[in-house]
Amino acid sequence: MIGKLNHVGVATPSIENSVAMYRDLLGATRIHEKFAMPDQGVWVCFVDLPNSQIELIEPYDDKSPIKNFLAKNPQGGQHHICFEVKDIIAARDEMIAKGATVLGTGEPRIGAHGVPIIFLHPKNTGGVLVELMQEPAHGH
Amino acid sequence: MIGKLNHVGVATPSIENSVAMYRDLLGATRIHEKFAMPDQGVWVCFVDLPNSQIELIEPYDDKSPIKNFLAKNPQGGQHHICFEVKDIIAARDEMIAKGATVLGTGEPRIGAHGVPIIFLHPKNTGGVLVELMQEPAHGH
Repeated sequence: MIGKLNHVGVATPSIENSVAMYRDLLGATRIHEKFAMPDQGVWVCFVDLPNSQIELIEPYDDKSPIKNFLAKNPQGGQHHICFEVKDIIAARDEMIAKGATVLGTGEPRIGAHGVPIIFLHPKNTGGVLVELMQEPAHGH
Repeated sequence: MIGKLNHVGVATPSIENSVAMYRDLLGATRIHEKFAMPDQGVWVCFVDLPNSQIELIEPYDDKSPIKNFLAKNPQGGQHHICFEVKDIIAARDEMIAKGATVLGTGEPRIGAHGVPIIFLHPKNTGGVLVELMQEPAHGH
């Protein structure tokens, strides 16, 4: 079922500092502008790689769902892995049928790429927070 | 400098259980045989995705460098991210010149893909353990 590794989600206390690190230390050359996703409680910034992306996420406010993660990992760290699927509804139904827990209401919401996403509970996926994302129509 | 996201390293207490999860829950279809890297203290198993890989790593013995990680994350979790570079020696020298800490002796060692690798200290890379790996001659 899973297709491409769309991105690795990396939580950071400062997108500005992380962008500087990816640009100046690691030499990434395609880094997008950051943008707010207030409903998800995060600022988001994509670092493009030739075959995938790093998704930098920073808390938008005190209710941010990544605040706890950063309390435990003050420097930041790997937060989730996102795999593409052809049909998010079919994928969601298959995950539930197989006994996995879909986070939130279970209804897909629109993610940072503008396509519907769900998250699986890490207890079902070896301690890794897994995002499933409907394939974008035109790649990244 | 960094090229492709070669793989995401995922630590697990049981490659067998993780393989079953990637195969039976997530529907991954290309999963390699596990193999031992006693010098690195890990068992390794690659899960292929169309554009990248998940590298499952399980402790080989009690001296395994991932034992502490699993003590803190008993279910497993995201352990490192690996980016390809064209020339590992040039990359290593550039990292040191820019003030980053290369783990171990600083000399590249041969990684699970048979090409030289180094690891950067997470304090330099936003809390993420970053592996740099010389581009394989023929892709995966």
